[in-house]
Amino acid sequence: MDDLKLPVTVPSTALFTDQYELTMVQAALRAGTAHRRSVFEVFTRRLPEGRRYGVVAGTGRVLDAIESFTFDERVLGFLRERKIVDEPTLEWLSGYRFGGDIWGYPEGEVYFPGSPILRVEGSFAECVLLETVILSIMNHDSAIAAAASRMAVAAGGRPLIEMGARRTHELSAVAAARAAYVGGFHTTSDLAAGFRYGIPTAGTAAHAFTLLHDSERAAFQAQVESMGAGTTLLVDTYDVTKAVQTAVEVAGPGLGAVRLDSGDLLLMAHRVRQQLDELGARDTKIVVTSDLDEYAIASLAAAPVDAYGVGTQLVTGSGHPTCSMVYKLVARSGSDDGSDAPLVPVAKKSMGGKSSVGGRKWAVRRLDEDGVAEAEVIGSGDPPSGLSGRQMLVPLVRDGAVVGREPLEAARDRHVEARGGLPLSATQLSRGEPVLPTEYI
Amino acid sequence: MDDLKLPVTVPSTALFTDQYELTMVQAALRAGTAHRRSVFEVFTRRLPEGRRYGVVAGTGRVLDAIESFTFDERVLGFLRERKIVDEPTLEWLSGYRFGGDIWGYPEGEVYFPGSPILRVEGSFAECVLLETVILSIMNHDSAIAAAASRMAVAAGGRPLIEMGARRTHELSAVAAARAAYVGGFHTTSDLAAGFRYGIPTAGTAAHAFTLLHDSERAAFQAQVESMGAGTTLLVDTYDVTKAVQTAVEVAGPGLGAVRLDSGDLLLMAHRVRQQLDELGARDTKIVVTSDLDEYAIASLAAAPVDAYGVGTQLVTGSGHPTCSMVYKLVARSGSDDGSDAPLVPVAKKSMGGKSSVGGRKWAVRRLDEDGVAEAEVIGSGDPPSGLSGRQMLVPLVRDGAVVGREPLEAARDRHVEARGGLPLSATQLSRGEPVLPTEYI
Repeated sequence: MDDLKLPVTVPSTALFTDQYELTMVQAALRAGTAHRRSVFEVFTRRLPEGRRYGVVAGTGRVLDAIESFTFDERVLGFLRERKIVDEPTLEWLSGYRFGGDIWGYPEGEVYFPGSPILRVEGSFAECVLLETVILSIMNHDSAIAAAASRMAVAAGGRPLIEMGARRTHELSAVAAARAAYVGGFHTTSDLAAGFRYGIPTAGTAAHAFTLLHDSERAAFQAQVESMGAGTTLLVDTYDVTKAVQTAVEVAGPGLGAVRLDSGDLLLMAHRVRQQLDELGARDTKIVVTSDLDEYAIASLAAAPVDAYGVGTQLVTGSGHPTCSMVYKLVARSGSDDGSDAPLVPVAKKSMGGKSSVGGRKWAVRRLDEDGVAEAEVIGSGDPPSGLSGRQMLVPLVRDGAVVGREPLEAARDRHVEARGGLPLSATQLSRGEPVLPTEYI
Repeated sequence: MDDLKLPVTVPSTALFTDQYELTMVQAALRAGTAHRRSVFEVFTRRLPEGRRYGVVAGTGRVLDAIESFTFDERVLGFLRERKIVDEPTLEWLSGYRFGGDIWGYPEGEVYFPGSPILRVEGSFAECVLLETVILSIMNHDSAIAAAASRMAVAAGGRPLIEMGARRTHELSAVAAARAAYVGGFHTTSDLAAGFRYGIPTAGTAAHAFTLLHDSERAAFQAQVESMGAGTTLLVDTYDVTKAVQTAVEVAGPGLGAVRLDSGDLLLMAHRVRQQLDELGARDTKIVVTSDLDEYAIASLAAAPVDAYGVGTQLVTGSGHPTCSMVYKLVARSGSDDGSDAPLVPVAKKSMGGKSSVGGRKWAVRRLDEDGVAEAEVIGSGDPPSGLSGRQMLVPLVRDGAVVGREPLEAARDRHVEARGGLPLSATQLSRGEPVLPTEYI
C-alpha cells in the first residue's frame, strides 16, 4: 500500500489501538486464557455535569471500523520491528477478524448513567483489541451529538448549519458533521462530510472576499453575478446598514440571505429585518454566526433569525468534548477452550471509585401510563416477567457480520423520536440531574 | 482510488475545506479578482483564559496537507454532481497546486495574542482554499501541545505517557500524540502514532486482564511469563496492598513497575513505595494514571511517583480544546493580473469586535539584557533599524515547494528552548496574563 499522504497512512483501523491491548493478547495467548468467552460493555458512570441525557452516536462508524480492523503486512512489520509483540502473537493477529457478536443502543438513541450502550461478546482476545477504537469513536461522536441535540432544541425548528471544521482536527471535523446531523443539524460547511456521508453542504462568504475587492459593492456584485441573487451575502465587514442597502441594490429584493457574524446579534437581527422589509426584501433570510452555543441560540428565539451557523461550541461538545465512556470486561467464562461454559460476572472491586457492575446486562426503558419514559432499568440474567417497556439493545454484529447498518437518516429520525419520548424537562437547557433515573435489578 | 475503508475515503486533503472557500474562488474567478496577490495570516486574538503562552504545533502536518491538496477526478466528480461550483472553477481546481510562499513561527515555538503564527502569500484563490485545513490542524494540535507543555512543567523531569486515544476521535488521537510529544511528553500508548510519526510507544495492562484470570496471581504470572519481570503490573483491581505483595512474589524484586489507576494517588504512592522498598523492590517504579491534569500532576510532585500517564485532559487541551486561531486576509494587491503591484493593507472594520490589524507583518521577540524575552513586537513594513531580538518567522514553503520540513525531535527540542527563554512566571500553572506583552509598531 502506497503512502497516500493522508493524515495517517494505515490502510486499516487496527493501529487505532493502545499498545497494552496487544501485549495483553500476547500474555493471554501464552497463558491459554485468550480464548475464554468474554463480555465487554461500553457505558458511562455519569453524564457530563448538568446534562439531562446523552446521545448515542458513532455506531455506524464503529461498524465500519470493525470491518477494517485487520493486520496487513505493513502493520505486522511495524509491530515486529518495534518488538511490540512476539511471533506467535503476530501470527494470531495476521488472521484476526472479529468473529463475535455486538449488541447496542441504536445510533441516535438517548442514554443515561450505566446504560449498556454497546455489548461486545466473543473471545477475550478478539474483544479486548477493539477497546480503543470503539471508545475513540463513541466518546467523540456522542459528545458532539449531545451538544447538537441541545442546540437543536434551542433552535426550535430553525435550520442549523455546522461550521466547526476549522476548530477541530480535520478528520474529527468530518465525524463531527456526521454526529451533528444525527443530533439535529441540517447542513454542514465541511465538503469532506458531504463527500463521505452524503450530508447536505452549505456555505456563505468570508470577510476576505469583501476585502479582496475594491469596494463592498464590487464584492457583492462579483458574488451575485457568479452565484445568483439567491446567495447569502456577508454584511458586517464595514457598516452593516450600508451593506444591507448595497446588498439589496445589487441583488434585488430576491436576495437569498444576509449573514451577521459579529456584534450584538439580537439587536442587529431586529434592525436588519426591519431594513430588509423596508427595502422590499421580505423573503431575504437572516443567518447568524459568531461563537454560538445552545444558550446563545435560545437567547435569539424571539429575534427574526432564520438560520444559525455553529462552529467552535459544537465541535468541542459545548464544554464537554468527550463522554467518559469506558469499555469494561463484565463477564467471562472460566473455560480456556472457548466453549459456552457459564459466564462469571466480574468487576473491579478496589476502593477509591471506578467500580462497576458485573454481569452481562439487558436494559429496558420503562414507560409510564402515558407512554412517557420514566426509568432506565438495567439488570443481568433474565428480565423480570412483569417488566414492560422498550428493549434498548439491538443486534449490530452477529458472528462477525455486520447486521445493524442503516442510513444516517434513520439515526437522525430516531433521535428526534427518542428525545420526544422523554419527560419534558429533558429539553431544559439549565443544569440538572439526568432526566431518567437508572434502576438496577 | 478504491474505498480504503479509512474514516474518510478522500485520497487528498482538498475536501477538508468549507464550501464557501470554493464558491468564493468561483466568484473571484468570474470577477477577475482571483489572481490578486494576497497575504493571509494565522493568529489568535487572545490566549485561552488564564494561559501564559501558546505553543505552535501542527506545522509539519500543515506542510504535508498542502502537498496533498489536489483535486483528483473523484473529488471533482463530487463537486460537479453536487453543483457546488461551475465548470470553469472545476477546470481551475483540476490544475490546482499551491504555488505561493509560507512563512511561520517554527513548530514548538511559543506564541502570544496577535503573533503572526503563519503567513500565506500567493494569489487570493490559491491562498483562500487553504484556510480550513490549516486552521483545523493548527487549532487542534496547538491546543494539545499547550496542555502538554503545562503538564511537562508540572511533571518536572518525570516521564509523561500519552494515553488519551480512547477519549478523542481516532485520528485526532494520532495528531494529539504527535502534539503532546512536541509539548514534552515522552511516549504514547497509541500505536498509530508510533507507526505514523515514529513516536516511542508504551503500555501497561488493563483491569480486564486481571479479571479474565481466575486470580490476580494467575494474571500477574501470565503477564510476567510473557513480558518478563520488567513489565508494569496494574495493582488496583482488588486490594492494592495484597496486589503489590503478589506482584513482587511473582516477578521478584526486579519487577519493572506497578500502576495505580484509582483512589488517592498521593497517599497510595507513599504506601506502595514503602511496601515495595520493604519487599526489596527498591528499583520498581510507580506509574500513576487516573484523570490527571497539570494540577494533579503538580500535586504529586512530592510523592514517590516515577511516571504519569495522562489521557482525557491532555487530548481535550485541559479545558481548552481549540485555540481560536483565525486566518485573515491582511493585504492584497489592487492589480488583477497577479503582478507585484503594491499591497494594500486590509482589515474588517465593523463595530462589535473581531476587528484585526491589516498589513503583512513581521514579528520579533525582544530580549532584555539578560537574554530573557520581554515583548512580542509586531509590525508591518520594515522593522525599525534599532530593534534587536529574534526574528520569529522562518520560511516554510517557497514557490510552492516545502522548505521547512524537519524531524519531530527538532520541534520538541525547540519548545524546551523557547519556553526556557521566557520569564520564569511563564511556568506558573495559576491563571494569569500572557507572560509577554504584544507591542504593535
